Amino acid sequence: MMRAHRPLTRRVYRGGGYAEAPRELPEEMPVALSFNGTTQAVMMATPTDLEDFGRGFALTEGIATPQEITEIRVTVQARGIDVQIWLVEAAEQRLAARRRHMAGPVGCGLCGLDSIDAVLRDVAQVPASDLRLSPAQVQEAIAALPGHQALHDTTRAVHGAGFYRPGEGVVATREDVGRHNALDKLAGALLAQGTDAGAGALVLTSRVSIDMVQKCAAIGAPVLIAVSAPTAHAVQLARDAGITLIGLARPDGFELFTHPSRIRPERTKNVA
Amino acid sequence: MMRAHRPLTRRVYRGGGYAEAPRELPEEMPVALSFNGTTQAVMMATPTDLEDFGRGFALTEGIATPQEITEIRVTVQARGIDVQIWLVEAAEQRLAARRRHMAGPVGCGLCGLDSIDAVLRDVAQVPASDLRLSPAQVQEAIAALPGHQALHDTTRAVHGAGFYRPGEGVVATREDVGRHNALDKLAGALLAQGTDAGAGALVLTSRVSIDMVQKCAAIGAPVLIAVSAPTAHAVQLARDAGITLIGLARPDGFELFTHPSRIRPERTKNVA
Repeated sequence: MMRAHRPLTRRVYRGGGYAEAPRELPEEMPVALSFNGTTQAVMMATPTDLEDFGRGFALTEGIATPQEITEIRVTVQARGIDVQIWLVEAAEQRLAARRRHMAGPVGCGLCGLDSIDAVLRDVAQVPASDLRLSPAQVQEAIAALPGHQALHDTTRAVHGAGFYRPGEGVVATREDVGRHNALDKLAGALLAQGTDAGAGALVLTSRVSIDMVQKCAAIGAPVLIAVSAPTAHAVQLARDAGITLIGLARPDGFELFTHPSRIRPERTKNVA
Repeated sequence: MMRAHRPLTRRVYRGGGYAEAPRELPEEMPVALSFNGTTQAVMMATPTDLEDFGRGFALTEGIATPQEITEIRVTVQARGIDVQIWLVEAAEQRLAARRRHMAGPVGCGLCGLDSIDAVLRDVAQVPASDLRLSPAQVQEAIAALPGHQALHDTTRAVHGAGFYRPGEGVVATREDVGRHNALDKLAGALLAQGTDAGAGALVLTSRVSIDMVQKCAAIGAPVLIAVSAPTAHAVQLARDAGITLIGLARPDGFELFTHPSRIRPERTKNVA
């Protein structure tokens, strides 16, 4: 088990003078995610919950379903951590074909158009869901998340991703210096727990760019609640994927961008 | 010129009821950065200041110096933007050799160890600098940045990177949905202006991970001031690179993590 934070001494300038004291800072290490012996990506990440990370990344990046994973091995090395994920043969062949397709004429170079299409990969519609939340439940979800962010409590400097189920509160949370990593770790944790992502909402401390919506769609969560704002593109993608996207979720209210039917209406007034 | 934001209608829930009104959301588009016809990276980015982005990315990722760039062409396509950067032959050959080295036996796959070493690339020491800032100047820099964040004023949802020069204030700023992109755009803008990065401080709205320190070192800025916290690894790297790293810079104070000699001391008291 790697430590997620460590104390470093710094000088604090406040009120016209300096004081010297330690501050707990989040750890950040290179984590290589390898599938059947070939590295797919290296991310700077908080070195915790790395099996969840591998399992979740495989799902949210469309590499392998949980059933196709035969083993995950986490190896700590001098300069980073290798997460080795082993897949059944069918999944390995699919991934190898995708890599051959991605490899352009000069090795790692891709032509710009192909690369843009890869970034804008199609997302699946989230499965039909009976989930309905009241505005009070949306506010309960966002209010509950901070109570599950132990690393953030210590460092005030990491992202959190949680899963909220009506009547039960936030049932799983993961943290990371990177917002994508926190969501991938949560995705892996939900798979490991056997939690049905269709029965609740993802709750994120971060802003919502298209990659966060792509991952949410792959997880199959019908509702995404975020503390910060979405991009215009992320709103379009959430609409296409059938995801109810809520942003700017704060103690005093929230903003509902797509598929409002999953949030029970109270009264609506029009503003000119 | 692409638009950096657009209005989308959403419902605002507040005080027990809904209101419907448009909100300006930041645009986010795939931007492919290609060198001599081969794409090096695709980033989701705010589609503004893209020549600066290309020039700055080339510098901060160690691909090419500004003198090695012969032309930058920005082409808007249906699904994204291609930034084509053309390099002199010596730089192209160096990049091609690096790509051959990076390409493993199965195309785009890299072995985990090589990839980790690539992520942890050595950083240059920033050039010796006479720059000294008073605590009041640090606070002036952080207080001045918001006045230069037009896109953030409109959307409340993008990162800013500025360059502060003592006696002149914030002399250049760039904004982007991505914190790395904002810094790369600023790096390109400083090059285009012929601004000596050694004569001032970078000011960032974001947190500081190692990649931000790597980019700061490549830019050659001796002081990095950030609104949010650094990771432990980023502090180590800033120490190694000779960069004065200031985090948690707020109106009422700041925290000084490395190379404090560039910030003039006032009085220091020790806290147990």
